[in-house]
Amino acid sequence: MARKIYFTPGPSALYFTVEEHLKQALKEQVMEVNHRSKQAAAYYQHAVENLKSLMNIPEGYHVFFLSSATEIWERQIQNLVVDKSYHFCNGAFSNRFYEFSKSLGKQALKSESKFGTIPEVNPDNIPKDTELISFALNETSTGVTFPVEEIYKVRKSHPEAIIAIDGVSAFPVIDIDFAQIDSAYFSVQKCFGLPAGLGVWIVNNRCIEKALKKEADGHSIGTYQTLPNLLKNGSKFQTTYTINVLNIYLLMKVTTDMLNKGIDMIRRESTYKGLLLQKLVTDHPSFNHFVADEKLRSKTVIVANTSTPSQEWIDELTSKGFVVGNGYGDYKGKQIRIASFPTHSKELIELLYDTINGMKL
Amino acid sequence: MARKIYFTPGPSALYFTVEEHLKQALKEQVMEVNHRSKQAAAYYQHAVENLKSLMNIPEGYHVFFLSSATEIWERQIQNLVVDKSYHFCNGAFSNRFYEFSKSLGKQALKSESKFGTIPEVNPDNIPKDTELISFALNETSTGVTFPVEEIYKVRKSHPEAIIAIDGVSAFPVIDIDFAQIDSAYFSVQKCFGLPAGLGVWIVNNRCIEKALKKEADGHSIGTYQTLPNLLKNGSKFQTTYTINVLNIYLLMKVTTDMLNKGIDMIRRESTYKGLLLQKLVTDHPSFNHFVADEKLRSKTVIVANTSTPSQEWIDELTSKGFVVGNGYGDYKGKQIRIASFPTHSKELIELLYDTINGMKL
Repeated sequence: MARKIYFTPGPSALYFTVEEHLKQALKEQVMEVNHRSKQAAAYYQHAVENLKSLMNIPEGYHVFFLSSATEIWERQIQNLVVDKSYHFCNGAFSNRFYEFSKSLGKQALKSESKFGTIPEVNPDNIPKDTELISFALNETSTGVTFPVEEIYKVRKSHPEAIIAIDGVSAFPVIDIDFAQIDSAYFSVQKCFGLPAGLGVWIVNNRCIEKALKKEADGHSIGTYQTLPNLLKNGSKFQTTYTINVLNIYLLMKVTTDMLNKGIDMIRRESTYKGLLLQKLVTDHPSFNHFVADEKLRSKTVIVANTSTPSQEWIDELTSKGFVVGNGYGDYKGKQIRIASFPTHSKELIELLYDTINGMKL
Repeated sequence: MARKIYFTPGPSALYFTVEEHLKQALKEQVMEVNHRSKQAAAYYQHAVENLKSLMNIPEGYHVFFLSSATEIWERQIQNLVVDKSYHFCNGAFSNRFYEFSKSLGKQALKSESKFGTIPEVNPDNIPKDTELISFALNETSTGVTFPVEEIYKVRKSHPEAIIAIDGVSAFPVIDIDFAQIDSAYFSVQKCFGLPAGLGVWIVNNRCIEKALKKEADGHSIGTYQTLPNLLKNGSKFQTTYTINVLNIYLLMKVTTDMLNKGIDMIRRESTYKGLLLQKLVTDHPSFNHFVADEKLRSKTVIVANTSTPSQEWIDELTSKGFVVGNGYGDYKGKQIRIASFPTHSKELIELLYDTINGMKL
């Protein structure tokens, strides 16, 4: 099998230093130590400190490790919602979180838009007693970024609600003011360039208090993944179950590399790479933009409608060694999705740009 | 850091072929492919076929991948219990499953024994309408094996109940007749010698039907980890979320190695190694058996009470390059626990035997 470069929107290309870190992990016997050992706790602590520094997470916020962002949807409803959640839905993933809330018997409401756009943000439509309001900062399925100002507007109008942010393919590239949100989460196989198998959940003390109150009021908040239990273990830099310690180690290593590079540099490069790929979609005769509104176009997941079946583009690019993503769900066969994550260098994105520019199908 | 050999009862020493497989995984870009790709599905299918063959799992049983055995405790209650569960509790882990059931609001009953023993198995004490009855085939915290005949006796007396088996540090070493149980689960960082981060859940069609009935009767069975959803995805050899694909790949590889060695050979060697370590505990002037009843002594996790603080033994052995486990919970400082898993060769166990035999503290 010839080696390929993955531009799929997660799992994607590994961060370029992962292979070396994996070899070091074997030397340090990271996969053999107990998840409650001092060695594993040191990885946990260091990874958390790095994330706080990289994403400018203020005091009073906690970072917990779970199995996936999917799990975190469920844990948020279990811990943070007694009755009512409200979801801004504009893609497969934001809709799925809404479905989770309904499955768990909550009164879930949504403001929905056509894929490729965002719903109108009218705070008056959100009931005053809503407990949790969710946004996908970057909809991986559609390549739409939710402008943070719209989120801050809702925070202002609903200061009592928990503001929950899906940062899956956004963090750490897209900057957000954590003081204006309460719960945020991501999985590591997107912008962090790690193997899948770890979800990261960031919550403030309001979330902890909400879970404690829900429990005190006689409602179940779950078993081992309750916020009080995550906090109890997390304060010792321990997880709530025998977790993928290797991934915490790799996250520690890759965030160290990112800090050394500098988050500003990573973000500037992301803007450049994103604009280049958007230009590709604008200029290429076979493509047009799925996301019509320029200011909603994601820097990290670029989506093009293809005038011929997208599988042909995918196959042809794969034969050249570049793997890009297909359209998601109903858009399969009609779109390509290209990830531009921190591991994808400017040079690599330029090479992809030139390659696709020279193709006619 | 000098390289050590882990005899801890999980996470433990990696299966001796894992390092090579990890290098191959990098070549095959296992950590970069989509979890729903044909490549990942092929790993899933092959791993399942290997497990069925290795553990003699009959037709009508399904194998699903989740994040941990801890998660599977929770999913079993959510999917399989409306009101009543019954737990044979004789250690930290069997008790924890009972606690999970109570946390989720069920009427959980238990038959409890002192650690180091098993509870009396009197089927008449189990209410006739019990929905799920649980046993730990090997209590990792105490080194006690639950004789399978006792389990089969309960199956016979309660044919309507789901018989649920914690096989965490037992499978594939301890043989069980799957036709006499319904749900079984383990995590891969014990006898399979893999990095932590994957739980394996084996269920028969009775479990699927029970979950469907629970749901049809208007009870929530969860969100993405419901048995119908696991089955829907699993029938395409796909998982229900972006899972640790690397671990499924490694499980496929290690089970292939185990099949090549032969399960009979692995079990014979386990018997020999277990007896040798038990003899060590019997003969050594500083040790005595925590598990008094010889026929309850585990082959895979050997527990010795130490006449001097166990930390001294652990430190001294660590300085010689051998890492053994401490006592669990209240027994910390009073016991050592030694894992004898398939990756620990006869020669290695003999070396450990000789080393400890020559020590006086």
